[in-house]
Amino acid sequence: MFEIRTDLAVETSEDKGKKEELSGIRVEKMQEGDDIVITRVCIETQKAAKSAGKPKGNYITIEAEQMVEEDTGYHREISKVFSQQLKGFLPKDYSNSKVLIVGLGNREVTPDALGPKVIDHLFITRHLIKEYGKYLLEFDKCCSVSGIVPGVMAQTGMETVEIMKGVVEETKPDIVVVIDALAARSIKRLNRTIQITDTGIVPGSGVGNYRNAINREHLGIPVIAIGIPTVVDAATIVADSFSSLMEQLNENGQEDVVEQQDFQEMIRDLISPKLNTMYVTSKDIDEAVNRLSYTISEGLNMTFVPEESHIF
Amino acid sequence: MFEIRTDLAVETSEDKGKKEELSGIRVEKMQEGDDIVITRVCIETQKAAKSAGKPKGNYITIEAEQMVEEDTGYHREISKVFSQQLKGFLPKDYSNSKVLIVGLGNREVTPDALGPKVIDHLFITRHLIKEYGKYLLEFDKCCSVSGIVPGVMAQTGMETVEIMKGVVEETKPDIVVVIDALAARSIKRLNRTIQITDTGIVPGSGVGNYRNAINREHLGIPVIAIGIPTVVDAATIVADSFSSLMEQLNENGQEDVVEQQDFQEMIRDLISPKLNTMYVTSKDIDEAVNRLSYTISEGLNMTFVPEESHIF
Amino acid sequence: MFEIRTDLAVETSEDKGKKEELSGIRVEKMQEGDDIVITRVCIETQKAAKSAGKPKGNYITIEAEQMVEEDTGYHREISKVFSQQLKGFLPKDYSNSKVLIVGLGNREVTPDALGPKVIDHLFITRHLIKEYGKYLLEFDKCCSVSGIVPGVMAQTGMETVEIMKGVVEETKPDIVVVIDALAARSIKRLNRTIQITDTGIVPGSGVGNYRNAINREHLGIPVIAIGIPTVVDAATIVADSFSSLMEQLNENGQEDVVEQQDFQEMIRDLISPKLNTMYVTSKDIDEAVNRLSYTISEGLNMTFVPEESHIF
Amino acid sequence: MFEIRTDLAVETSEDKGKKEELSGIRVEKMQEGDDIVITRVCIETQKAAKSAGKPKGNYITIEAEQMVEEDTGYHREISKVFSQQLKGFLPKDYSNSKVLIVGLGNREVTPDALGPKVIDHLFITRHLIKEYGKYLLEFDKCCSVSGIVPGVMAQTGMETVEIMKGVVEETKPDIVVVIDALAARSIKRLNRTIQITDTGIVPGSGVGNYRNAINREHLGIPVIAIGIPTVVDAATIVADSFSSLMEQLNENGQEDVVEQQDFQEMIRDLISPKLNTMYVTSKDIDEAVNRLSYTISEGLNMTFVPEESHIF
Repeated sequence: MFEIRTDLAVETSEDKGKKEELSGIRVEKMQEGDDIVITRVCIETQKAAKSAGKPKGNYITIEAEQMVEEDTGYHREISKVFSQQLKGFLPKDYSNSKVLIVGLGNREVTPDALGPKVIDHLFITRHLIKEYGKYLLEFDKCCSVSGIVPGVMAQTGMETVEIMKGVVEETKPDIVVVIDALAARSIKRLNRTIQITDTGIVPGSGVGNYRNAINREHLGIPVIAIGIPTVVDAATIVADSFSSLMEQLNENGQEDVVEQQDFQEMIRDLISPKLNTMYVTSKDIDEAVNRLSYTISEGLNMTFVPEESHIF
Repeated sequence: MFEIRTDLAVETSEDKGKKEELSGIRVEKMQEGDDIVITRVCIETQKAAKSAGKPKGNYITIEAEQMVEEDTGYHREISKVFSQQLKGFLPKDYSNSKVLIVGLGNREVTPDALGPKVIDHLFITRHLIKEYGKYLLEFDKCCSVSGIVPGVMAQTGMETVEIMKGVVEETKPDIVVVIDALAARSIKRLNRTIQITDTGIVPGSGVGNYRNAINREHLGIPVIAIGIPTVVDAATIVADSFSSLMEQLNENGQEDVVEQQDFQEMIRDLISPKLNTMYVTSKDIDEAVNRLSYTISEGLNMTFVPEESHIF
Repeated sequence: MFEIRTDLAVETSEDKGKKEELSGIRVEKMQEGDDIVITRVCIETQKAAKSAGKPKGNYITIEAEQMVEEDTGYHREISKVFSQQLKGFLPKDYSNSKVLIVGLGNREVTPDALGPKVIDHLFITRHLIKEYGKYLLEFDKCCSVSGIVPGVMAQTGMETVEIMKGVVEETKPDIVVVIDALAARSIKRLNRTIQITDTGIVPGSGVGNYRNAINREHLGIPVIAIGIPTVVDAATIVADSFSSLMEQLNENGQEDVVEQQDFQEMIRDLISPKLNTMYVTSKDIDEAVNRLSYTISEGLNMTFVPEESHIF
Repeated sequence: MFEIRTDLAVETSEDKGKKEELSGIRVEKMQEGDDIVITRVCIETQKAAKSAGKPKGNYITIEAEQMVEEDTGYHREISKVFSQQLKGFLPKDYSNSKVLIVGLGNREVTPDALGPKVIDHLFITRHLIKEYGKYLLEFDKCCSVSGIVPGVMAQTGMETVEIMKGVVEETKPDIVVVIDALAARSIKRLNRTIQITDTGIVPGSGVGNYRNAINREHLGIPVIAIGIPTVVDAATIVADSFSSLMEQLNENGQEDVVEQQDFQEMIRDLISPKLNTMYVTSKDIDEAVNRLSYTISEGLNMTFVPEESHIF
């Protein structure tokens, strides 16, 4: 049908799932407290990956209607749930690992600034551990955390994966964690969903170009990607609205109105090529990205530099 | 029909104009050089204002396909055309006037940062003239320019017009110029159109709330509003696409498919309430707003602090 | 002697106090917990004001060695002490007042960004109370808080007091609170001291120009000024070092080395005029200003929008 | 004597030069136009390098009193002179080279933001050339330019040279150009001096730690470092003032006042350890850094992406 873009595995599965259970994709939903829903999507086969348009691997989505609210206590709650889920992607004995955390995206564009802002609030410990050693400090359960904001290709002229390969080669972390703003299909998920996956990420996309993927294959070490949808593709929102319209017409018994085929061509023509360079975001995106960057960075700090290790 | 939002008078007139010449609205198009189109819209009667959803007054639109390109020379060209058109809104003998320039919008949200960024690049002269006097400096043809970035209501708790009234009362400018990012109806106008009007502006809107208008009526002195569309309302883009679809169905002879009335209700339902808090913008909005803020501020500097007056 | 600049009343009194108790200046010191020292300075007479170079009125200084440390719990402790002391400057029944909070300074200059950053983190309630009314929300003990970042004269061409007069006239607050970065005399106080005073403030100074003071006399309502020293004047640091040197030479019995008079002239010559446009600040000023802006804004939020009033 | 810190070779040579011509250091001064002075310092021997506290190699300084002024034409003049001098450090046939430009420093600290801001204004071409090829575009005389802002160690936990090694290894540039804000000894050089050198740079220092130098030895390709002094060390300004005082006392025939030895110890005591974490900068540093970042980036664009190659 229309090319619906989404970076969320949970949306891919929903879509396809309507008609039949998709073979090769396992979906599990859990409730956490009153209003947090955790969904586990496992894409198990290459064939399923192709059909879903997402790499084989594990995806966890944490959804919470109130995620974007101003309540500090609630944010800490989400940070804890996020930290718990993140630990599921880490080796059991990760507590002394070397972790490189990468903030993807463009700081100058509000909905794309999530990654860089997360890095701003991290406890960075690698240089301290290198200088003072672990034995001097109470760093027993503290990871060596480094962080980088590589910038986007229009600013650097380099693919992010090129920069990452070099930095990984030189500083030898055990694990890479990348943070990025994502595109959702549905506006109801904007700023309300955290996705964690072990499949890595393709910066600035969701479509196609796997040559530039930041993943285990390219970096040689585990890559955990964390994302929050902050935009919807403009073409997606229009195409999706059209689909709903058509469904409703069909339900109303007017299904023969337009041939399915013709209808789609008509729509493809209506969606101007300019729409492909456009995205939809919310009017309060500045506050949402600020708050969510704290939620994520608190969760990362809890995970990699737990409070009992702080003496500095 | 659907509530189509646009801050551009030129789009209002286009829309209505399709079927009949609108009485009380005068539209004039001119070519300027190869690819700059200037449109003058004059809303002459209260009735026309109501029908157009825009206050009575004069609107000039400068459109240029290349407005957003990186070419410095071309930008200066646009700045000159803009300055010429702006002078048409000023009194003949404005060259010693006291001008207060106001950058509306939220600096933290990329497409809304136009106003604040324009203020960043202005020659501010009021304090210099007050301290050194005009006779000492070569300020003969130089306006007394002051500037302010009042912030948005969520940040200040105050209506912008309250702040402006107070500052105007206290500093007694002759003219107020306000700069704001606008919403267009059509994405093809984004970042490519400058509107100048003597009707003032309603911050954060385009709809309804004239109580908060920053205009001559409220400030007691002429208010010239300058805007560039950097967003399209998300609901507008969807509704507009639906209209096009319906028109096409009608042309194809399927006009009786759905009753016009039903169709509209269906669509109103499809456009979720959440869509009303969403907007569409372009992926390169950071670069566009940066460049356009220079284009506008250069034009304002040319107009109010011409180069022959610089000695500082 | 040399013109030593400081915005801190506590430093004025220390200096003069060395030789004699200054008549007309009352100084009181208190310990708060382990490492917080609170000093109350009251300048009681016009004569004392002249001799101290500070307006008549009350000054409270909260000093804490650890103020700049990264510990979140500790920061909250300071915010509480600050809120308590601030309440001493407010009327007993202030809990429903209209408060305008003003962030002075230049956001683009790191040590001067304190005021603007404090405004960023405030709970702004005025527009909510105006729209929804107090009875609907649980705003019983909640002030109507508005905020503004007026900018500095080089950016606006206007004296800050002009802008403030206008905004006060138009929005009718009961109290104005201004936040500003200050200059200390001693680098040991940088980023470690909060001063609260009922005398208002002269932006960008500490010397002389009382015409532009933001105070009760000019605004017609109480003005409480809150400041943290983030810079030391470069000339002050050099002159102060010279004084120490001279004292040491005197103690060593070399007091006749140079005539006091000659020495001072010599030093005045050595301190180049360029030094007067220079200031000293710390290398980690970005982190210090970030953290302290949270400390202050949390204290203001506790004071004016206490948690029991939050339902939004 | 006192440890005077300066990153400018021209200041090292001045200082030592007072008493005798330093063997192994060649200094040449030229006038360029009315008020631009170019000084060439060549440190020729390892012994001279040790005595000067600067690595062996070539240093060019461009000094202009008006460098910081607002005049656009004048800035372009400086950019041209800078570009000419820079070309002297490049191979003759550099016009198709691959150049990686690195913006050192901390964007959040105004005087340290020079490097990051220069990168903001560069023409980045590497990704365009990779995608479209040179033959398609008029890139004949255009370098492949990439850029990066690596951040400072407190933000990343990594030495800048580690990041650079990795990126160079991966993207294989022919030349690295690093931009950094420097520390001068004399405030009269602040914001008025550009230094170009082929010796590379040690981030955040000027003293000692050559293990972290970004230079040819560590990166394996030529490294050209460009810097502008925007700060003076606080201890340096005090120590330097003391030296001047002592000289003046000596000239006045009071040379036996204090034993040279004692005097220095006294001063070392007076310069508090806290002073070592402090720097001096100018009050208008935000405007100065903004303007100078354009001067440098324009010069780099002229050099690596000359206008005749622009078609984009």
